[in-house]
Amino acid sequence: MSATDEYLTNNTAYAASFRGPLPLPPSRQVAVVACMDARLNVYALLGLGEGEAHVIRNAGGVVTDDAIRSLAISQRLLGTREIILIHHTDCGMLTFTDDDFKRRIEEETGLRPPWAAEAFRDLEDDVRQSVRRVTSSPFVPHTASVRGFVFDVATGRLSEVK
Amino acid sequence: MSATDEYLTNNTAYAASFRGPLPLPPSRQVAVVACMDARLNVYALLGLGEGEAHVIRNAGGVVTDDAIRSLAISQRLLGTREIILIHHTDCGMLTFTDDDFKRRIEEETGLRPPWAAEAFRDLEDDVRQSVRRVTSSPFVPHTASVRGFVFDVATGRLSEVK
Repeated sequence: MSATDEYLTNNTAYAASFRGPLPLPPSRQVAVVACMDARLNVYALLGLGEGEAHVIRNAGGVVTDDAIRSLAISQRLLGTREIILIHHTDCGMLTFTDDDFKRRIEEETGLRPPWAAEAFRDLEDDVRQSVRRVTSSPFVPHTASVRGFVFDVATGRLSEVK
Repeated sequence: MSATDEYLTNNTAYAASFRGPLPLPPSRQVAVVACMDARLNVYALLGLGEGEAHVIRNAGGVVTDDAIRSLAISQRLLGTREIILIHHTDCGMLTFTDDDFKRRIEEETGLRPPWAAEAFRDLEDDVRQSVRRVTSSPFVPHTASVRGFVFDVATGRLSEVK
């Protein structure tokens, strides 16, 4: 049985006690941008209830153009106002460089990716970089509460990056 | 008290009973790509355990270049093999068009976004489009198990799109 099939079996149990539908706009008007890392259960670590907040995730929790697209839709069409950015300790993005990663792909496939891999060297610096990318974007209108955090995968604790 | 501050209080309670750290590579070798919608608690609806699967999310659960970047890192550096794509009923992406959204932003800010908004008209068609974007990408090496689903926000149930 594949992992996908096992998760589908889990979903049947989930649906059995499910109560819906909730409204489309996030009730707490929050958008979270976090790393895709498997150890970040974003709902649990923030105590998010279903329907409360948009959750945007990618490799690194980096504020890419696609994260800006999602935040623009989140704020302009669905009314969110606060943004929470979450990076974490022991992140895979600290273990390689863009140049190496893209060169390896090019050697294997013959094609160099047109995108930046967005690896970074310093966790807190990259949180600050992400905050600045949000606050300087002309497409994200509400930037009064854009706060960045590091999640510690050993302790489960969020620390704010100032 | 802001919503962000309330979530930080929740995190203190989460950390008090947290046990870590788990290893960096996802233990079930799965990557999920899902919509950012607030009603999709991806860990709960699939019964994912912490540390099992990467979770990539954006507006629509669309396979953008940034999702491909994340999947490339997930498979090439962190060993995932199966991909689960999740769209959902009552999606905000069905309520607007790219042209309207980008024109409104241009009227308000004077700048037209350089990215596609990725709105879509048909949920199942867009799931199929997303599956094809993954399977046709030269940068995602493992495409033997790429399966697409619609999550019903009324019932909590996943339906596979063939």
